[in-house]
Amino acid sequence: MKEPFAPTEIKIAVIGGGTGSFTLLSALKNHTSQIAALVNMADDGGSTGVLRDELGALPPGDVRQCLVALSESPKIRELFNYRFDEGTFQGHSFGNILLSALEKVTGNFSDAVETASDILRVSGTVVPATLDNVRLKLEWPEVSVELHGERIIDAEYFKHDPRKAKMSLLPSASANPLATKAIADADLVVIAPGDLYTSLGPLLVIDGIGDALRKSRATKIYVSNLVTKSGQTEGFSVSDHADEIERFAGGEFLDYVLYNRQQPDAQLAERYRQEGAYLVEVDHDVLSQKHYTAVGGSFLGLIAERDTGDTLPVTRSLIRHNTGSVANAIIELYDNSRNN
Amino acid sequence: MKEPFAPTEIKIAVIGGGTGSFTLLSALKNHTSQIAALVNMADDGGSTGVLRDELGALPPGDVRQCLVALSESPKIRELFNYRFDEGTFQGHSFGNILLSALEKVTGNFSDAVETASDILRVSGTVVPATLDNVRLKLEWPEVSVELHGERIIDAEYFKHDPRKAKMSLLPSASANPLATKAIADADLVVIAPGDLYTSLGPLLVIDGIGDALRKSRATKIYVSNLVTKSGQTEGFSVSDHADEIERFAGGEFLDYVLYNRQQPDAQLAERYRQEGAYLVEVDHDVLSQKHYTAVGGSFLGLIAERDTGDTLPVTRSLIRHNTGSVANAIIELYDNSRNN
Repeated sequence: MKEPFAPTEIKIAVIGGGTGSFTLLSALKNHTSQIAALVNMADDGGSTGVLRDELGALPPGDVRQCLVALSESPKIRELFNYRFDEGTFQGHSFGNILLSALEKVTGNFSDAVETASDILRVSGTVVPATLDNVRLKLEWPEVSVELHGERIIDAEYFKHDPRKAKMSLLPSASANPLATKAIADADLVVIAPGDLYTSLGPLLVIDGIGDALRKSRATKIYVSNLVTKSGQTEGFSVSDHADEIERFAGGEFLDYVLYNRQQPDAQLAERYRQEGAYLVEVDHDVLSQKHYTAVGGSFLGLIAERDTGDTLPVTRSLIRHNTGSVANAIIELYDNSRNN
Repeated sequence: MKEPFAPTEIKIAVIGGGTGSFTLLSALKNHTSQIAALVNMADDGGSTGVLRDELGALPPGDVRQCLVALSESPKIRELFNYRFDEGTFQGHSFGNILLSALEKVTGNFSDAVETASDILRVSGTVVPATLDNVRLKLEWPEVSVELHGERIIDAEYFKHDPRKAKMSLLPSASANPLATKAIADADLVVIAPGDLYTSLGPLLVIDGIGDALRKSRATKIYVSNLVTKSGQTEGFSVSDHADEIERFAGGEFLDYVLYNRQQPDAQLAERYRQEGAYLVEVDHDVLSQKHYTAVGGSFLGLIAERDTGDTLPVTRSLIRHNTGSVANAIIELYDNSRNN
């Protein structure tokens, strides 16, 4: 049992990928400097994909965005996210080029991330979940269907139920020891909102991550997505999301699931429906039977978060978390869990 | 008249371009942290040329090398000089990409250099001699011959006496106010060894630089080259070099000219001769009649300096200054000039 009033700052490990986790990181860093961002390493799209293919580099994109989220220097943050719009470098983000150059100079991606953290004056640490050079695979063995590559899977309209699909990494990936250590040392583990099959899953299926989560004495909170993803998670309720998270990790480990109960503007929700995206249903009856505690809150942002992603801003939705409110709720839950 | 024993560190402005000045900067920074490196901005070759052409960026190459010379961080220094050897970025130095990205992000090259200095933990400052986007021009009006572009001029075997050529920048360039201020504030101005027609000249002909040099109360020292450049300065003595320096600057300003009197290994000198490069002749009779004081020393390095330039290492000579000895001689000369 941990001290109810620990004299040191709370240690948080955040598992995520995609805009949802980057903005949540920015909000959580207001509560502690002891934050470790664990990063999905199966990304193979856009600038990241080119750098992987041409230089054999590990994927820099998500690492860059976590570094930027935790940076204390606005000017260097802007530099890292700068994307060349002409010439030889067109489409490449500067931070990606930097990470790939540093990987060449230092000889390994771990040192590259450390040096980049130094340049960006990062509060906390950014930890690649694995240092193996891997690609994502999703397969439905019963119907002999296989999908390869995160970029391809991300764009896929699934023909079969993804809950029956087996997710794996090729070749098989072992967890970065710094990633399992961050989970073991954490007081609080947050699974950030994000795409199940192309952001969170590829991290959680890494050998050693699930075991570390189950062994850790941290309070473990999953923040459910707000809307479903067309062609992938249609009809998924809050508990369906949480079930998949735990399936990827190889078993139960969650203490809390945080969901939104605020209604968005009706017109906005209608526009989403027309694009095949629906508000995630809060299935109270099922949630109340689970081993974790489901907690609702008013988590909608009034304005869209600024996009810093690898994909184009136009593909982003406008139903977003108010990450400040989510971070407050997470810290409150944690405090309550330690005081009761 | 300055204080003979100033309580503050000596302020040095270094004018240069090319390997000679970068290594001299590294040596001089051991004597003071108040060093300003003024940088030639007419470079248009290699990675720098591509970035100028494609992005409309100001030339980053020489700025990068001055930043690296003054950096206190070995790891980030290595990153800045890293050159991609495959893929989209092949041939580009990382530091050049960074400076061009920063120029886009900050909107001007001056802020870009400042932020890069911050990242590299630079001791002192690096000052682009002009912020105008210019190209070098060398013309012999009497024979109606014009050469355009530093890269082209650098590779040229001159058919006419370059001492009769007019050097200019297109469009005309005004000195960066920070450059003239650095010269005005300096206790000591050093003109580093370097190519007359493609490194030192293009900086000295900028409007305002020559006037600033003549007005400055600093001790002004020119460090003469060791060998002549084939097809460009063949037969040039020490005084010929100094004459050209002052011609570029529009008039006399030198207090001292430092030359080498040490003989290199005979075999090495012979190899140079075969490539059309000769030891610069020390013309004592002429030097003794000049307004400046010529001072000789043993300045040869025992080993080749490590190359950090934009061109390939194989094109570099092996007769090099021992920049530590040169820096010591410069400081000694300065101290004597202030005590007498």
